[in-house]
Amino acid sequence: MRKPKIVILGAGYGGLMTATRLQKAVGMNEVEIQLVNKNDYHYETTWLHEASAGTLHHDRVRYDISSVIDRNKVEFIQGTVVEVNREEKKVILEEGELPYDYLVVAVGGESETFGIKGLKEYAFSIVNVNSARQIRDHIEYQFATYQAEEDKKEERLTIVVGGAGFTGIEFLGELGNRVPELCKEYDIDPHKVKIICVEAAPTVLPGFDPELVNYAVAQLEKKGVTFMIGTAVKEATETGIIVGKGEDEVEEIKTGTVVWAAGVRGNAIVEKSGFEAMRGRVKVQPDLRAPGHDDVFIIGDSSLVINEEINRPYPPTAQIAMQQGVTVAHNILALIRGKELETFVPDIKGTVCSLGHDDAIGVAFGKKMTGSTASFMKKVIDNRSLFMVGGPSLVLKKGKFNIF
Amino acid sequence: MRKPKIVILGAGYGGLMTATRLQKAVGMNEVEIQLVNKNDYHYETTWLHEASAGTLHHDRVRYDISSVIDRNKVEFIQGTVVEVNREEKKVILEEGELPYDYLVVAVGGESETFGIKGLKEYAFSIVNVNSARQIRDHIEYQFATYQAEEDKKEERLTIVVGGAGFTGIEFLGELGNRVPELCKEYDIDPHKVKIICVEAAPTVLPGFDPELVNYAVAQLEKKGVTFMIGTAVKEATETGIIVGKGEDEVEEIKTGTVVWAAGVRGNAIVEKSGFEAMRGRVKVQPDLRAPGHDDVFIIGDSSLVINEEINRPYPPTAQIAMQQGVTVAHNILALIRGKELETFVPDIKGTVCSLGHDDAIGVAFGKKMTGSTASFMKKVIDNRSLFMVGGPSLVLKKGKFNIF
Repeated sequence: MRKPKIVILGAGYGGLMTATRLQKAVGMNEVEIQLVNKNDYHYETTWLHEASAGTLHHDRVRYDISSVIDRNKVEFIQGTVVEVNREEKKVILEEGELPYDYLVVAVGGESETFGIKGLKEYAFSIVNVNSARQIRDHIEYQFATYQAEEDKKEERLTIVVGGAGFTGIEFLGELGNRVPELCKEYDIDPHKVKIICVEAAPTVLPGFDPELVNYAVAQLEKKGVTFMIGTAVKEATETGIIVGKGEDEVEEIKTGTVVWAAGVRGNAIVEKSGFEAMRGRVKVQPDLRAPGHDDVFIIGDSSLVINEEINRPYPPTAQIAMQQGVTVAHNILALIRGKELETFVPDIKGTVCSLGHDDAIGVAFGKKMTGSTASFMKKVIDNRSLFMVGGPSLVLKKGKFNIF
Repeated sequence: MRKPKIVILGAGYGGLMTATRLQKAVGMNEVEIQLVNKNDYHYETTWLHEASAGTLHHDRVRYDISSVIDRNKVEFIQGTVVEVNREEKKVILEEGELPYDYLVVAVGGESETFGIKGLKEYAFSIVNVNSARQIRDHIEYQFATYQAEEDKKEERLTIVVGGAGFTGIEFLGELGNRVPELCKEYDIDPHKVKIICVEAAPTVLPGFDPELVNYAVAQLEKKGVTFMIGTAVKEATETGIIVGKGEDEVEEIKTGTVVWAAGVRGNAIVEKSGFEAMRGRVKVQPDLRAPGHDDVFIIGDSSLVINEEINRPYPPTAQIAMQQGVTVAHNILALIRGKELETFVPDIKGTVCSLGHDDAIGVAFGKKMTGSTASFMKKVIDNRSLFMVGGPSLVLKKGKFNIF
């Protein structure tokens, strides 16, 4: 009898969780599991703002996939997904084709530029190790060039962050720590550096408790961040960005660095493969299968799960992606073994937004917290995600222990 | 009675040596000494190729001027020299004016591009801490961008060095060590990186012993360097350089990085101030004064001293600049005290060209040497120049002790 074949696309939080849970739960010859990923490493997406600012080396943010999978049970395939052929039940890779009986689409999200002119050409996004490394080096190169050039362009020392959501705020927090180091490295007067955050919404961190938001804004302003709230990015150009409050008050900010952190959408692969999606996100069934599909699960940034309490989608987070991985591993085995599928219910344990390595805001166990308490909690959360995938040895290898 | 006022322009090898020798030799109230320098630090010009490649941090290449001067005897002025007004015996700075009785012009050299089109716009030069830091960051940013961009531009991984003289060869040696590290840092296959040296002369390191030259070429080729000898750089463009053997064989090399290391000339300040000069270098009298001037000494890269044995100028080196500093300190005091001036006689103790941190070629004490022996000798020379200016404490602070 042929063994059922499970193909998992993506080794991010959701995919890797699915793979490691499956390998624990299946017998030696029960199923065939293939895990496909572009790189041979997993990276912690929620830590990329640190690598981007240069406060944490990108090697600290990633680990080899081979270090957490059991090769007797999971075959790792390094490859780039082009699309899914749902009719023929196979995945088209740049490198070849993979047939499947059960498919887990965990391909992650993409930066959403909302069609704003020039962003794709002139702005950076914090999306993977490659882009994070490039942002870090770009900022350093701007500082070095400023110091080396005869006619100094002051805008090289201006960094604009588009978006005051989670990623934007966490990146600003790291920049606040990093800029003084950069000024020392490049012999630059810190007063010449400008960090500007442009946010179209009327508030920083929409959805967060206002008291915590006020704390965050005050702390970041102390670190030199200027907020332009209720201000939309209209266009990015070669020399800066054009922003405006409404149609009339339009202003150009000259800058050498624009980091766009204002939007995440699902993966284009999902749309290309013909799944019904909104901005690349598929509203999945309670058991996490794509509507109309018995054999395809979609999780992580490309899935949409509604929070019934407020009738709005849950934000795409690492926490939810990992919990989805646990449910998918259970449900695939239930299908194979003829058992009942379970419904995915997110269990939001807390949300902490860091403001640099020594400060944060958040809610955990129903309690608001700020400062070093919140920062400590953030590191606990970061280490927990390592623990869930790779156990204590991965935490020891990659965990955050700079706890004061 | 007014104290004689000595103004020293530049705190490079020559100027700093003059200042430290003078401060040892003069009585507490005998003279007034002012040392002018653009930065508040001295840098080791002969180590800049390491900072440029990224094999040695630029902070290891410089030290505070205040750490080696005696403030009771020497006043340090951070300023940028515009020109010397010889008639009125004063120095024009961007920040003001300084009258002098005795002047030491030790303002260093500049990169010489021989009017080759595009070099000023598109090529880097290894001339100071700022440019070295920028070259290092530029190369890193090219590697990062290559890895992050979708349509990969292979030329980002090509580094062209113009010139196979001393600086060019030493920089290539460091690149040979650095590129494997860069490939690791940016996940790049080392086989994709190209290092090309273009030299118009018919040989590498003209003037060096041919046996040593052959050794150097073989060692650098092993490290991945391709030599294009007898090949002139015709033009630098935004996307690369155009080179040619003679008029007919013209070729474009696509590259993201051109480092021009093929020429040093004297400082434009010298010409601007009306001293008779050839490419910014003044053929000084045997006592190192500028012809026709009783009170102006010119040393270092802006001075020209003829080697009578071969009737050609000595190459401008740190070794000679420092020896000139000793002579100038002596001669200024001789003028003040009514003693006889001495003639400058270079004492070439040896010449060692490094090929990376663990390899070199050279001649010292009349002996040819290669490999680790020569590399050891190079570090001895580097430490000696620290010793001569700042004594054992400066050697301990900034010296090179990575001796195997």
